[in-house]
Amino acid sequence: MNLLTSINTPADLRRLNVIELVNLSGEIRDFIIDKCSSNPGHFGASLGTVELTVALHYVFNTPYDKVIWDVGHQAYTHKIITGRRNVFDSNRKYNGLSGFPKIKESEYDAFGVGHASTSISAGLGFAIAARLNGENRKIISVIGDGSFTGGMAFEGLNNAGWENANILVVLNDNNIAIDPNVGALKKYLTRITSSGKYNRLKKSVWDMFGEGRLRKLFRYVGNSLKSTMISESNLFESLGFRYFGPIDGHDVGMLVQTLSSLKTISGPILLHVITKKGKGFKPAEKNQTEWHAPGRFDRNTGKIFALTPDFSKPAKYQDVFGETIVELAESNPKIVGITPAMATGCSLNFMMSKMPKRVFDVGIAEAHAVTFSAGLAAAGHKPFCNIYSSFMQRAFDSVIHDVALQNLDVVLCLDRGGLVGEDGPTHHGVYDLAYLRLIPGMTVAAPMNEIELRNMMYTAQLPGSGPFSIRYPRGHGVSPNWKLPFEKIQTGKGRILREGNDIAVLSIGHPGNFAVEAINRAEAEGLSVMHCDMRFVKPIDEEILHLAGQKFSRVITVEDGTVMGGLGSAVAEFFARNNYDCKVKMLGVPDSYIQQGTVEELRANCGFDAEGIYNALIIMNYKL
Amino acid sequence: MNLLTSINTPADLRRLNVIELVNLSGEIRDFIIDKCSSNPGHFGASLGTVELTVALHYVFNTPYDKVIWDVGHQAYTHKIITGRRNVFDSNRKYNGLSGFPKIKESEYDAFGVGHASTSISAGLGFAIAARLNGENRKIISVIGDGSFTGGMAFEGLNNAGWENANILVVLNDNNIAIDPNVGALKKYLTRITSSGKYNRLKKSVWDMFGEGRLRKLFRYVGNSLKSTMISESNLFESLGFRYFGPIDGHDVGMLVQTLSSLKTISGPILLHVITKKGKGFKPAEKNQTEWHAPGRFDRNTGKIFALTPDFSKPAKYQDVFGETIVELAESNPKIVGITPAMATGCSLNFMMSKMPKRVFDVGIAEAHAVTFSAGLAAAGHKPFCNIYSSFMQRAFDSVIHDVALQNLDVVLCLDRGGLVGEDGPTHHGVYDLAYLRLIPGMTVAAPMNEIELRNMMYTAQLPGSGPFSIRYPRGHGVSPNWKLPFEKIQTGKGRILREGNDIAVLSIGHPGNFAVEAINRAEAEGLSVMHCDMRFVKPIDEEILHLAGQKFSRVITVEDGTVMGGLGSAVAEFFARNNYDCKVKMLGVPDSYIQQGTVEELRANCGFDAEGIYNALIIMNYKL
Repeated sequence: MNLLTSINTPADLRRLNVIELVNLSGEIRDFIIDKCSSNPGHFGASLGTVELTVALHYVFNTPYDKVIWDVGHQAYTHKIITGRRNVFDSNRKYNGLSGFPKIKESEYDAFGVGHASTSISAGLGFAIAARLNGENRKIISVIGDGSFTGGMAFEGLNNAGWENANILVVLNDNNIAIDPNVGALKKYLTRITSSGKYNRLKKSVWDMFGEGRLRKLFRYVGNSLKSTMISESNLFESLGFRYFGPIDGHDVGMLVQTLSSLKTISGPILLHVITKKGKGFKPAEKNQTEWHAPGRFDRNTGKIFALTPDFSKPAKYQDVFGETIVELAESNPKIVGITPAMATGCSLNFMMSKMPKRVFDVGIAEAHAVTFSAGLAAAGHKPFCNIYSSFMQRAFDSVIHDVALQNLDVVLCLDRGGLVGEDGPTHHGVYDLAYLRLIPGMTVAAPMNEIELRNMMYTAQLPGSGPFSIRYPRGHGVSPNWKLPFEKIQTGKGRILREGNDIAVLSIGHPGNFAVEAINRAEAEGLSVMHCDMRFVKPIDEEILHLAGQKFSRVITVEDGTVMGGLGSAVAEFFARNNYDCKVKMLGVPDSYIQQGTVEELRANCGFDAEGIYNALIIMNYKL
Repeated sequence: MNLLTSINTPADLRRLNVIELVNLSGEIRDFIIDKCSSNPGHFGASLGTVELTVALHYVFNTPYDKVIWDVGHQAYTHKIITGRRNVFDSNRKYNGLSGFPKIKESEYDAFGVGHASTSISAGLGFAIAARLNGENRKIISVIGDGSFTGGMAFEGLNNAGWENANILVVLNDNNIAIDPNVGALKKYLTRITSSGKYNRLKKSVWDMFGEGRLRKLFRYVGNSLKSTMISESNLFESLGFRYFGPIDGHDVGMLVQTLSSLKTISGPILLHVITKKGKGFKPAEKNQTEWHAPGRFDRNTGKIFALTPDFSKPAKYQDVFGETIVELAESNPKIVGITPAMATGCSLNFMMSKMPKRVFDVGIAEAHAVTFSAGLAAAGHKPFCNIYSSFMQRAFDSVIHDVALQNLDVVLCLDRGGLVGEDGPTHHGVYDLAYLRLIPGMTVAAPMNEIELRNMMYTAQLPGSGPFSIRYPRGHGVSPNWKLPFEKIQTGKGRILREGNDIAVLSIGHPGNFAVEAINRAEAEGLSVMHCDMRFVKPIDEEILHLAGQKFSRVITVEDGTVMGGLGSAVAEFFARNNYDCKVKMLGVPDSYIQQGTVEELRANCGFDAEGIYNALIIMNYKL
């Protein structure tokens, strides 16, 4: 490492020559491998964009020119060369660097990201602002082929082409999202890439290594820009973009020259760059899904530590979902599985491998996933549509307009419900109970453990169950022995786990387990606590609420979600309507944005871990 | 009318010959003109699809085959020839026919619609279900070029092409949404249409009128199908669809023959059909935006009654918005206006005509509209993004992830907030207060009258106001003299309109006026009522809530929105947290789907008109 240590801002970078950029890229790659092996992060995507990032900051005048990263998994090089190398150890940690670009973190982070397909729309905002201000600012949106399947990317292209905006869209085509990319567009991109032109191009550039490389490159690229512009016949040209490429995204010289040429062209431009996810670290190149975010690993052996199952812990909710849907689908032929590009993450890949014709990975396209599910349900099937909670926000209208209003039997499984930890505020799934609860006719359930998850899934697939949502967190449950025979749960009925006289605790979902621990401590100190696992936020168990309202003057609600509209609100509404004089302490996620950290840190900070619930019990009792 | 009266189902239709179909189409058109002149509806779109609808039901075996209409504005012919002709007078009326296809209304309505861009996704659901069931069912999604700008249409195409699904997408290209269509795709479609081929095609078909027409048509279409299939070079072909067209959507013979041929082809197919919105009624052809939904009109003179302004009534909130944003933009050069295809509806067209470079109609693309606004704000501009409340649901994640989380100064104006009347459950904007309230950092305001709307807009554009939403209803306000000098409103502060001792009424937005009327009546009967116009649901005025909680044991909340998460919940939460023993009666939209009708009928049914509030006051007082 002798180049990288001298790069504190892109201005330092711009003093290097292209050969040095090649070396620097190697150093950055090594740095990322080193750091991510001990401090887990989004590894594969960032390895794939080292050269592209170096070239962008080299050619463009950042931060005056704006680079907008889509999703942001790929932005580690960007962080490293824009002044954050020395604090990169804190990546994704509590009070550390965000795992994603974030406006407040750096003037080089033009726009905050996390969710997919936003970069063209946001970039167009910058481009139009520059036009209105009469600034000759360059705007570059970098978007992966995975993110390109999201409808907003198309909406952005369609608008940018119409506006004839000065925007450069770099399509970072690595043929994969987290799971291998899907969709007609992917096929189309593959056809372009394999059409011969790309491979010829790549070879020519390769041949030019050695003396005179730069001059030749210049001449070569000048010609190739013309030759690679495919007028009208190209999808992107149809939408008013000039298309260039595909070019090799790991050839930093080629990238620098191409970008330098494109910099002089105005109007909407798309540069198609071919990269390899995991580039430069063989195991990651080979198994790209596993190495998307591998956790800690041994950089010498390529061993991912997390791959060794920890048998001391109960199963993950994800595995319970994955195994249970297979079990249910085996006896209910109407069940189908739908995921927008999260098959591995949510374990729908279990069903995919057993019943490939009944599982549909629709690509990053949440709204479509839900409306497609609605169509399947209208045609008599029983879709289980699994979407991470924070991504379900993108399908909100599809849930209301296409599923719930039509009373269709769609089962919405919201994985990653609640605080998710290191991914931070863009990914916390903390609004779902609130935004689902306000939808008429929607069942909103959350299991406290694996057995409940199984039984909720069983219940949801029974005929006539209507729009049914089940949300559960990432990670381990609590039940060693969860594979029990299915039992139907009565919709809208909670469970009284413990009777008591002083205070009532009403919990929903997994944090009920923290409540159990807290109540055990409090009862050891003489407090008598009723505890109900509500199981449903909607319909809510009014029998339990009447009981709580009649018997108690102090109630604590516990949820792994916002206190603005979820279980706590449902309880408060009920008490206010029915005139129960009852103070309600609502534990959950406060009405603010929660940063990244371990889920344990974050729950503790929010005050709904066992300690927080215990404290609330003691304080409430003291104040009686 | 001699053919139409005999058509009660598509089976009756299928007994006719093509010449009769031409005549029938004329009769249907006449029927629609006649009915819509006295009972207002979505006029222009339905006139444009008469022949297409007739041909679809003629060629395909509905209801076994499924036709899915996008949006549904264009589906009147569909309703008329599928058994609903005799009840068409009840269209859009309380307890009458829905203005949109609706599963519960007819077995011919395969999928319920209202919002745009859902038909391909839903159709794919049906197509995949048919494949899984081994059925040779045909699925046809009919989507306008306006709806095609919505990202979900692209997500659907991308997935359908990948699945190689048996689906026919009919692109009903009339070059207009409600306002003229925009976007690069529109330009592309125009290039295809004006490329000469279409006009040649049209002429040839025209020449063939007369003897032997049918036979010639058959031969002609057979050839044209081949010749019009443009492999790879076409946008739709890129996404795995076989593209046919464009053909004349008002030539029912051509349509029948083309559809008959396409029926025999499997895989994803796109048929590009050119239609004219308002076809067959000259004034509507000429001024398509005005005649989208013209209200009542004189079919002989073409006079639209609603176009005569009713000076006896106060201004419409829409006009207040439209005039005020111009006024603000004249003094604040950072202000820009954004609308996803609702410029006329929301009156942003006022600003568009005065400052065309500062207003952006981005097409039907709500998520993009909001994220584009976020980009503009990140670049230092002050975007006012105006979206109808029920359509803002489609941008929910953009509001959370791109605007609020980044604390960007975007002003979200939610027009059509609350019950909208005749458009019914798909369009009621009744969830917004609830779904915006749960977003940290979001200001959620609703004006009680025109002056408040102006002052909220003024306040929202001041520096550092952060994410700021203002929702207001469709239609007339209450203030004859609203053009007063701007005053800053303190964010989160309500107004006490009247002091009282027995009951407190807390209202938000326009229904505060109903509360005034109700309280006047109740006070005349001796009741003493405090009334606060809360103005903000978030941040909520805690001073007022403490006052209400301390002084009253009975509180009524009033809002034109769901009682599940809005103002009522905010009040209940506050009382429960602070242990105020106070019964809260929450008036608003109950937790169920509200059908269509006049807003007066619907408000009365929900119980938050003046009569409903008065009754609640009396009952609550009686129960004291």
